[in-house]
Amino acid sequence: MNQTDGRLLRGEQTRRLILEQAVNIASIDGLEGLSIGRLATDLNVSKSGVFTHFGSKEELQLATVRAAAEIFVAEVVRPAEQVPPGLGRVWRMCETRLGYMSRPIFAGGCFFYSATAEFDARPGRVRDEIATNLRRWRRKNVDDIKDAMAAGEISKDTDAGGLAFELDAYARAGGGDALIHDDPEAIRTARTAMLARLRTVATDPSLLPPA
Amino acid sequence: MNQTDGRLLRGEQTRRLILEQAVNIASIDGLEGLSIGRLATDLNVSKSGVFTHFGSKEELQLATVRAAAEIFVAEVVRPAEQVPPGLGRVWRMCETRLGYMSRPIFAGGCFFYSATAEFDARPGRVRDEIATNLRRWRRKNVDDIKDAMAAGEISKDTDAGGLAFELDAYARAGGGDALIHDDPEAIRTARTAMLARLRTVATDPSLLPPA
Repeated sequence: MNQTDGRLLRGEQTRRLILEQAVNIASIDGLEGLSIGRLATDLNVSKSGVFTHFGSKEELQLATVRAAAEIFVAEVVRPAEQVPPGLGRVWRMCETRLGYMSRPIFAGGCFFYSATAEFDARPGRVRDEIATNLRRWRRKNVDDIKDAMAAGEISKDTDAGGLAFELDAYARAGGGDALIHDDPEAIRTARTAMLARLRTVATDPSLLPPA
Repeated sequence: MNQTDGRLLRGEQTRRLILEQAVNIASIDGLEGLSIGRLATDLNVSKSGVFTHFGSKEELQLATVRAAAEIFVAEVVRPAEQVPPGLGRVWRMCETRLGYMSRPIFAGGCFFYSATAEFDARPGRVRDEIATNLRRWRRKNVDDIKDAMAAGEISKDTDAGGLAFELDAYARAGGGDALIHDDPEAIRTARTAMLARLRTVATDPSLLPPA
């Protein structure tokens, strides 16, 4: 590896380190809580070092949203895709989602839960980036449900969009309740609701775990 | 009215005016976005005038949470209580809730949705006050469902706590989606989910409106 490659590698490592910290800060103090100065202090690098990577607070916020989305995909989506398409995958995605909401992956709870509430009334590129990722997540869930319908494992007359909305609503509410009330039981409440809802549309409920 | 009464009245009016503005600011920029200086400028009163009423940022935040809760009760709970206890009241509460989420009552959408996401990872008096109000709201919903069960209008074997969680989850997700995607249709999706869910537990579904 020549010197330039070494610098690029260190650059990429620094960028990752910065974004990891940025996602954690944002999950606690919001995307508005991010600042180049604060990241530089936290990570003991120079402000110009952070600035080189992001240039502006908005660019830093956008990169942070994208980094959080990558973590979400790695923690929730990819593990569920180990299961073949069908009801099993739909249920697995519910479980990986709840796991993600109950483990301390982000210091301040689900990044997208916080970011959505923070930016929903602030038009601009950051809000658009958050909304794009949420739409992608919903589309993924609808596609998985439609695959399960095509496989005959979810009843054909199911409203896939409605079901995706409901499962997502349980996860969001359960994760939110668990955090604000310091009550992990709320995750279990969400799980119970998801499982009961899937039982009403499963053509063979024995494909689902017992309640 | 003597002079002291007049001063008290003006004081109470000023306090209300300040809190009204504080709730709106917090719904957009969060409770951390509140400052005595900003409120004084926005309302064209002196900083010491605002300070007299609240004394500290934390007191201001606590008073703002309480003011938002009063608005929520006036807009959502009281109108539903015009309907006698039973399935009709449970459904009316769903409707007043969705109405509250679709009308621009707070400039930045549901105050509690934003405040919860902002403070769920910040222990302290403000988080406790938010959590207390959320528990009160959940308890109210559970009580209304139990009343409907006692009236024989919701099936006796219903898990009242689970049902309250699910209905609340739909409203939160629908309101959140409507705001981040600028899509009022999300409120309708939540309404459809609420109505379908209540149909599964209603002993006489004709007590509910047609889908």
